[in-house]
Amino acid sequence: MLRAMADALETDRELLVETADRETALGAPRLNGELTRTTFQLRFFADVIEDGGYLEATIDHPGDTAMGPRPDLRKMLRPIGPVAVFGASNFPFAFSVPGGDAASALAAGCAVVVKGHEAHPRTSQLCADALRRGAETANISADVVSLVLGRAAGTALVLDPNIRAVGFTGSLSGGRALHDLASSRPSPIPFYGELGALNPLVICPSAAENRSAEIAAGLANSFTLGVGQFCTKPGLAFIPAANHQLVADLAEAVNAKSASVLLNARVQQGFAGGTTALLRLPGVGQLAAAQPPATNDGWWGTPLLLEADAAALAGAVLDECFGPVLVIVRYESDNELFDLLKKVGPALTASIHADDDDLPLARRLVETFAARVGRVVWNGFPTGVAVAWAMHHGGPYPATTDALHTSVGASSIRRWLRPVAYQDVPQQLLPAELVDAPVAGQRLPRRVDGHLDN
Amino acid sequence: MLRAMADALETDRELLVETADRETALGAPRLNGELTRTTFQLRFFADVIEDGGYLEATIDHPGDTAMGPRPDLRKMLRPIGPVAVFGASNFPFAFSVPGGDAASALAAGCAVVVKGHEAHPRTSQLCADALRRGAETANISADVVSLVLGRAAGTALVLDPNIRAVGFTGSLSGGRALHDLASSRPSPIPFYGELGALNPLVICPSAAENRSAEIAAGLANSFTLGVGQFCTKPGLAFIPAANHQLVADLAEAVNAKSASVLLNARVQQGFAGGTTALLRLPGVGQLAAAQPPATNDGWWGTPLLLEADAAALAGAVLDECFGPVLVIVRYESDNELFDLLKKVGPALTASIHADDDDLPLARRLVETFAARVGRVVWNGFPTGVAVAWAMHHGGPYPATTDALHTSVGASSIRRWLRPVAYQDVPQQLLPAELVDAPVAGQRLPRRVDGHLDN
Repeated sequence: MLRAMADALETDRELLVETADRETALGAPRLNGELTRTTFQLRFFADVIEDGGYLEATIDHPGDTAMGPRPDLRKMLRPIGPVAVFGASNFPFAFSVPGGDAASALAAGCAVVVKGHEAHPRTSQLCADALRRGAETANISADVVSLVLGRAAGTALVLDPNIRAVGFTGSLSGGRALHDLASSRPSPIPFYGELGALNPLVICPSAAENRSAEIAAGLANSFTLGVGQFCTKPGLAFIPAANHQLVADLAEAVNAKSASVLLNARVQQGFAGGTTALLRLPGVGQLAAAQPPATNDGWWGTPLLLEADAAALAGAVLDECFGPVLVIVRYESDNELFDLLKKVGPALTASIHADDDDLPLARRLVETFAARVGRVVWNGFPTGVAVAWAMHHGGPYPATTDALHTSVGASSIRRWLRPVAYQDVPQQLLPAELVDAPVAGQRLPRRVDGHLDN
Repeated sequence: MLRAMADALETDRELLVETADRETALGAPRLNGELTRTTFQLRFFADVIEDGGYLEATIDHPGDTAMGPRPDLRKMLRPIGPVAVFGASNFPFAFSVPGGDAASALAAGCAVVVKGHEAHPRTSQLCADALRRGAETANISADVVSLVLGRAAGTALVLDPNIRAVGFTGSLSGGRALHDLASSRPSPIPFYGELGALNPLVICPSAAENRSAEIAAGLANSFTLGVGQFCTKPGLAFIPAANHQLVADLAEAVNAKSASVLLNARVQQGFAGGTTALLRLPGVGQLAAAQPPATNDGWWGTPLLLEADAAALAGAVLDECFGPVLVIVRYESDNELFDLLKKVGPALTASIHADDDDLPLARRLVETFAARVGRVVWNGFPTGVAVAWAMHHGGPYPATTDALHTSVGASSIRRWLRPVAYQDVPQQLLPAELVDAPVAGQRLPRRVDGHLDN
């Protein structure tokens, strides 16, 4: 079914990209890439469930223990039930109707009701149609996927007693409100909100010295990618105070960029309001700005490079500002850097640029960030979240509402599964995955009597 | 450290059991057994972390994918941070200070602050002392375990920004209040509440016919075990209406039992109030009662066998009544049975007694219960929760506040861990579990480039 859904999306590619471009202004190249990622992801989850390890199948045969005789116990994960998914505005495919939350929930065996984002209703409908067609091709009811639109429908969905879990990608305020709603139900359900982050980045002294132009170009590209509308956008960069070249290179790279069209009026207002507020703060100034738009007609966003004093690292400077803006802070010493980092909250990612001479500092940075973020990036940039077995896209609040889980990668399927144990249940009544004799032709990874058997 | 903690508890066994008996009236045989379970559990978690599979170590080497080049990605689980544990009244060892929540959180690498239960403060203090001594023996700070007492301290603990997750075993009302508190924090944290359940049990026609006396004796023992103060106590049994022998045998078995002392005044009031309320309901009657106590001085609980009409299966009859009471319901047909089961909510367990002739009915029952409870028990009784790899002790709300997790067994450690990914991080800065060359002498199960490697 997942592969048939991927095929159905590919069949409609031209119409989907054209429609999404009209609704999001993200451009055909980016949208084509995003759709490729989306179909790749559906096929990836098909591989994950064929592997079967995600079921955590576990068998303990009866035996005598220090606690006396133990019954026959078998356990595996099973679908949690119907799932609600809230599509994001910034990824009309990869984090919306056919995106990671829906794909992983379908892979888990759960029906999905998607609340499509208001900013791309037509794209949402076309995607839902394609997924439903894919389900039918696989002889599964099209209703395994359904679509609702509008804020009231979203609230009703979270409160519906039939819904057993919620996936959400969006803003901190919207996500928090829905999290609180899910937690306050008569029967509370898990709410997996991926809310975005400041994504700090540190450039160590030798790296700044040796690779100034390369790092400046990479960083300018990363914070302006998709007009800065990525939850993994680096929003705060720490740069050695002694190095002036890197800041100059960065300013030059930003000056050479141009304004682009943001997703919608709300994003535009948020970006304009957020950057204006930042610039009013004492100790915050503007270092560079991209070429402004030729017209003010439309939802333009002009990339901005700001600088904050160490003393200004508080309040709004520590909150995510969605859109193409990067704040830099210069640090005088390692000790000052770690003092400043203490003020930076949890995030989806943190990035470190370091050369060989930076290793002692970099080692401390890896440890510091690993205790606080979901993904530590080395000599790279956090935008770009690979669909892979080892990906983790998550982090402690406010990066997400549930630090235990990821919204990208193989393990994201775990969010929609709950364990069930069978005690002394006869072989003929057990699920096929838990009988003694392995399923014909299938090599299911299981833990049997404490030992992995794959 | 976990093994040294088990040793320290064993050293203090006599004093611990004597103190706990004074505080809980559970009796030395039961308390000795419970302490054995508790030290077994600490040692079991030492085995689990030595196995290393719980880390979910995953490596994706860099490579070309359909999505373009993928960076080097490595992921493992890491401790979530300091954990708060609320001890239960009914298990002064196994679900209190040195119990499953604390043991699994310590195994995960988290410091633990236990809020001891008011009903056994001295036992709590002695257990905390033993765990702290065990930590010191292993050259770890004794403060890896600390103890607080009192309701206000418990609330403060859940709200403390340093606490990153909460484990709780107790009542639905108490657990729900703390769940709501944890969810409403400025920075919400996971709350794992194990709240108890009705634990339905079905006796199929042939089993009732063939094994009446055996099932009656087993069921009477199970619902009165520990004076009915188990979260896995079977509270509701469905019996074929055509069979009169089983009900007679059950009544006889209950009549032969005696009143016992309950844990504390609150439990006694809850049991007395709950059973009185049940008996006032139309369609509910008393079938049998154990021998009453010789004195009313003390917190006595007298085991009761009640019967409810099919029509009375609503309201309080469907809520857990903590203490030694079992309600039976007679069913006329398979269809009526499944109609009645639709009214029964999620639970920790469900039990099925069936013989060969019952298989078609039993198959439907296994499927029905597996969709709704945490553990399906076959021809047995749900009291008794083995510490094992394949155990699942959990279930959808109101059995627990988080259907994804278990509070007993190897996987209970997962509650206190969060994933961290490392992107392109050099070998010398990676955790030992994620470097390419396996750790010397250690055989860590890992998934490498999509394949399990153990």
